[in-house]
Amino acid sequence: MSIKDIFSSFTKSAETMRGDDKTFAADLTNKDFNDPAVHEHGSPVDYQKIEKSPDMEKVHQWQRDHIKKDDQSKEGYPLNVIIDPAMREMYQVVHNAEMTNVFDRFAQQQPTQCKFCIEGLSCQLCANGPCRISKKAPRGTCGVDAHTMVARNFMYRHVTIGTAANIFHCHQAARTLKAAGEHPQSGLKIRDAEKLKKYADMAGLDANQPIEKLAVDFADWVMNDIHAPFHVESKTVEAFAPARRKELWRKLGIFPGGGYSEVAYAQTQCMTNFTSDPVEFLVRGVRLGVANEYQGLFMLNILQEILMGTQAITKKQQNMGLLKENKVNVITNGHMPLLAHVAIDLASSEEWQQKAKDAGAEGIQILGHVCEGQQLINYEGTHNQSAYAGQEGEWLSQEYLLATGVVDLFMFDYNCTVPTMPLFAKKFGTKLLSTHPVIKLQGTDTLDFVPEKMQEQAAKALDMAIESFKNRKAEGRETYIPPHVSDCMVGFSTESIKNALGGSFKPLIDQIANGNIRGVATIVGCTTARYGQGGSNIFKITKGLIENNILVLSGGCTSSVMEYTGLTDPKAAEECGDTLKAVCQQLGIPPVLTYGACVDIGKMTQTAMELADALDVDTNKLPLVIGAPEYLEQKAVADACTAVALGWLVHVAPVPSITGSEVVVKTLTETTETLGLGKVVVEMDAEKTVQIYVDHIEQKRKELGI
Amino acid sequence: MSIKDIFSSFTKSAETMRGDDKTFAADLTNKDFNDPAVHEHGSPVDYQKIEKSPDMEKVHQWQRDHIKKDDQSKEGYPLNVIIDPAMREMYQVVHNAEMTNVFDRFAQQQPTQCKFCIEGLSCQLCANGPCRISKKAPRGTCGVDAHTMVARNFMYRHVTIGTAANIFHCHQAARTLKAAGEHPQSGLKIRDAEKLKKYADMAGLDANQPIEKLAVDFADWVMNDIHAPFHVESKTVEAFAPARRKELWRKLGIFPGGGYSEVAYAQTQCMTNFTSDPVEFLVRGVRLGVANEYQGLFMLNILQEILMGTQAITKKQQNMGLLKENKVNVITNGHMPLLAHVAIDLASSEEWQQKAKDAGAEGIQILGHVCEGQQLINYEGTHNQSAYAGQEGEWLSQEYLLATGVVDLFMFDYNCTVPTMPLFAKKFGTKLLSTHPVIKLQGTDTLDFVPEKMQEQAAKALDMAIESFKNRKAEGRETYIPPHVSDCMVGFSTESIKNALGGSFKPLIDQIANGNIRGVATIVGCTTARYGQGGSNIFKITKGLIENNILVLSGGCTSSVMEYTGLTDPKAAEECGDTLKAVCQQLGIPPVLTYGACVDIGKMTQTAMELADALDVDTNKLPLVIGAPEYLEQKAVADACTAVALGWLVHVAPVPSITGSEVVVKTLTETTETLGLGKVVVEMDAEKTVQIYVDHIEQKRKELGI
Repeated sequence: MSIKDIFSSFTKSAETMRGDDKTFAADLTNKDFNDPAVHEHGSPVDYQKIEKSPDMEKVHQWQRDHIKKDDQSKEGYPLNVIIDPAMREMYQVVHNAEMTNVFDRFAQQQPTQCKFCIEGLSCQLCANGPCRISKKAPRGTCGVDAHTMVARNFMYRHVTIGTAANIFHCHQAARTLKAAGEHPQSGLKIRDAEKLKKYADMAGLDANQPIEKLAVDFADWVMNDIHAPFHVESKTVEAFAPARRKELWRKLGIFPGGGYSEVAYAQTQCMTNFTSDPVEFLVRGVRLGVANEYQGLFMLNILQEILMGTQAITKKQQNMGLLKENKVNVITNGHMPLLAHVAIDLASSEEWQQKAKDAGAEGIQILGHVCEGQQLINYEGTHNQSAYAGQEGEWLSQEYLLATGVVDLFMFDYNCTVPTMPLFAKKFGTKLLSTHPVIKLQGTDTLDFVPEKMQEQAAKALDMAIESFKNRKAEGRETYIPPHVSDCMVGFSTESIKNALGGSFKPLIDQIANGNIRGVATIVGCTTARYGQGGSNIFKITKGLIENNILVLSGGCTSSVMEYTGLTDPKAAEECGDTLKAVCQQLGIPPVLTYGACVDIGKMTQTAMELADALDVDTNKLPLVIGAPEYLEQKAVADACTAVALGWLVHVAPVPSITGSEVVVKTLTETTETLGLGKVVVEMDAEKTVQIYVDHIEQKRKELGI
Repeated sequence: MSIKDIFSSFTKSAETMRGDDKTFAADLTNKDFNDPAVHEHGSPVDYQKIEKSPDMEKVHQWQRDHIKKDDQSKEGYPLNVIIDPAMREMYQVVHNAEMTNVFDRFAQQQPTQCKFCIEGLSCQLCANGPCRISKKAPRGTCGVDAHTMVARNFMYRHVTIGTAANIFHCHQAARTLKAAGEHPQSGLKIRDAEKLKKYADMAGLDANQPIEKLAVDFADWVMNDIHAPFHVESKTVEAFAPARRKELWRKLGIFPGGGYSEVAYAQTQCMTNFTSDPVEFLVRGVRLGVANEYQGLFMLNILQEILMGTQAITKKQQNMGLLKENKVNVITNGHMPLLAHVAIDLASSEEWQQKAKDAGAEGIQILGHVCEGQQLINYEGTHNQSAYAGQEGEWLSQEYLLATGVVDLFMFDYNCTVPTMPLFAKKFGTKLLSTHPVIKLQGTDTLDFVPEKMQEQAAKALDMAIESFKNRKAEGRETYIPPHVSDCMVGFSTESIKNALGGSFKPLIDQIANGNIRGVATIVGCTTARYGQGGSNIFKITKGLIENNILVLSGGCTSSVMEYTGLTDPKAAEECGDTLKAVCQQLGIPPVLTYGACVDIGKMTQTAMELADALDVDTNKLPLVIGAPEYLEQKAVADACTAVALGWLVHVAPVPSITGSEVVVKTLTETTETLGLGKVVVEMDAEKTVQIYVDHIEQKRKELGI
């Protein structure tokens, strides 16, 4: 028996124990959680009972009326927070079938959420614990106080995980670029050679060598920096960060070295009976934020653009209505569309369309989901590929998406891929495929990450999809595709905006200077399943901002929200304050410019850095606010640390688990700003949030004298 | 206002808010934990009320009688678990003065310890949470089940932190060796040039170059391997791991690359909506265990021995009775005695003794505490230094140690340094000094880690100590030194044992083969403050093992327990079973051989690997058990992963927070063994534990045919 057999049988038992394996389930009786488990696969599906959403025009009107009612709290949950028409329909399918699903699970967790955990006052690090801090017990057993406990939890639960993940992503993109240079036959292309030359030159490499050789050199340069020791100053930060920031970071001791070594440093500090200075954890968090940007977000964007083509402004479509009953439907999910773009190239060939037809389909199409989808919809290299069929939705909709029954292959390479996918795949006939061993799901196939063999691997994936389609048709399974589709203008980025403006940011700066555009808000990050959220908080805030003539950039699952609420349609100019409306109408753009994924925050910071350069000011002087009104996970926390490092106000909701310490709260919301860094603002109310953004932007305008 | 001012004022407020700063304390009223806080500095100290322990001979008798009574549970806590006579006295001082302290804090946390956290069924990773798994809610909001939640918690709370910390330690030791090569005037010496040559040669370096140059090359080689990508096979593992193990690890996919990259990989997997296969987390944990050994424990031992001299068997002393009222007393604490050994060199000079005398002292002495102390007591390079005064105690005794009032300087470089040290330092007039920025305490001085300047930094530390002594004398503060001192035989390691045996392990192997020694148990790790533990579980188990003719190796705070219970005194041979007794008496050794610190587990694995080589068997065939009967923290968990990788049975207590998942428990306690790896056994009862060890060893003997 090999390890693969043993582990796979184990994995399968982990997967099935909740449903099929009675013996295992019986074992769990003492564990008190088997009863609901055996119902996880649910009862039969009934697509007839759905209360259908109206057409998109009416949906948009309903969305606008609905959020005015301000009734997105517990009463009526979750249909009071789900404003995506497709998800509203499919939620009913899943809920009625009594299957586990994200909104129902959130409700199940209420109101038992632990007060200590909410405030960061619970620690599970050592065998003397778990400890929690209260009036009765003001310190943990080791002696840790509330401040250190909260700050340390913040570090190892959120900052190091998020930073590691973004840098890991960049690392994989660099490996892929290297493979593209070394193995041009692998299916990987160098689509933006000029960009490669530009950044390689900035890195100090010889940009005049053959492009394949340059790709290898640049990829190695990036990987070497990521893997440098923490005590060796990062070359990517040195090469790409603004001069004034670098000076400040050196002064504050937060100029990082190699990112992985930095992560290990911070993890080390989180040991029991190790660092117990809360401020040290927070300062280190900002230092990791710098690494998170230049060895993570910023650089992974450059690398992926070199491979997939830079953004181009265009019109595309979003939502479940793009699925086709009689096509082979492939969903590619995650954040690293590396194999996905090879698969799209391949599927767009006559050969693969024919294979699909031979299997009885009208063809094969690939749609992106979550942030992967937001990237694919923006890259110039995807736009004209015939098999590319658009963007699906946000992370919350994954389970509901599979419930359509027409997803033949769901391939994924990173977060956000929810743990229940195997249950849904089994119930609705979807084949699951991980394309990087870093993400493994229970009982699910995983491809090794071998960029040199991506063409071969992509072909394997497409074969699986066609096979899965054949099974779907052979079994004659019932399916349902919500008909909703949104039109959106996409493809915004530093370069595409500059191109659209005639090659310079001057026209944009003029509009900001004359006050037609008061400032810029980046509304980024995730959506949560919380009361008052589920997309609706993002929508409310964004509406408020554009009414106040603030231009919005979006990235992440927020972009999905912008798309299904119509805010990325140029028509949305009508909803802006007068001056922003005029600007949008003149340029033919919507008031929300989608930059793509949450990882495309690196492109927004690049835009901001170029604006600051054009104005010859430090980045913290810009009339700019970063908002994550429904942040969910650890990369969002790391990104907030990046924003603080760059000097920006960052609004977050829900409330992070730091309220148990006045020192932590005060340091992050006040002290950091006095040092020339940014600061964090926490606010749950949408109207108040808009006012905070407006006030901050007006204050920055005043300081700039505009 | 500079960042240092702001952060230091903040840090101070964090430190003082619990006591002095009424405004800040008042702010905390809403937080419900200010009341006990203002009493943290306690009431006046009264050294007269102590119930004194008898002399050591009677103490040893009391310890033996006491544990037979089996009354180490809640009733009578903590004096029923504290068996160190010095700590027993000083606990009373601190407790009577109503100061916060580790045993009282543990009691305060009872019985409110959270059931969900105990079982690993609580998750605080994302903003949809915190979630906990119960019958009512069998999955977290994201969809994570009990198995993935438990396994993921295990990974990011324990394995990655512990692995990062051990590798970080190795990394700092490598930096120090490099500095010793590049700056021979820095105070650092290459004390074991032969060892450097031997291991550099095994690494494939040219060992015939000048020793300083070789030091730099070898240090770089180690650092480069630590910083290599996860997808490049580790050179240290390749160079130093047993051939049969390497083959197995490759087969199982757990042959690691660079350690920091591996840690970042595993942290990435812990993202919300990322890997949700529980077995994957456990397999990855074992892979990190391999890195933890060869880029951590094993290699840091080699590097530190090169700098501080290999172990030599000798007799030394332990406990608080070694403090001297009229000497400048310096305690060096932690796990990386790099600056400490330079300080000992310096303090042993006539010049520094004179400086101390000029300040009115009889001299200056340096004592090691915790694992740092266990290393210093073992290194040949420390043994003859006149200022070196012995080993203090285990981590639990830190607060009580400072309460003597005679510790002038407490310098520390790593864990375990408890967060309340600043409170005790303030109350008892101790100066605190961190010697590496990786560990920062509230309102406490920190030296940068600059190995090139260690002589200068050590001088600064000694100056601080002398100044502190002068203050102590000027203020005429009352002090009390418990008079207890234990005699111990120390300095055991692979090489020192082999030397003592005449250059080969054959005599030991013969004794194992003929059954006089049934097998070897390594009793390592920490002590906890738990009921039934506090050192007493270690003592009970060890007594049981030697009575069963099992030779014990110890490392970590367990070694302190062995020392203050007399088990490292050759006289303890009397307490063994007949055959082990005869062997010990013949060789003049105790039945417990202290290898030093918890990080010296790397030396034990080396001994085991050499024994396996001598027997020409794989490591998992040895009649060997690893026990951590009072494991506390994350490095211990990483070390357990190492032991599993090497094929050994690892007993741990207390119960790790994995019981919420049958899959996790079964994988770690059963499945791994079927793959040729080791396995974990959890048992809280000392007698049953001894039987488990005996049975396993007898089974292995049977398999070996001896």
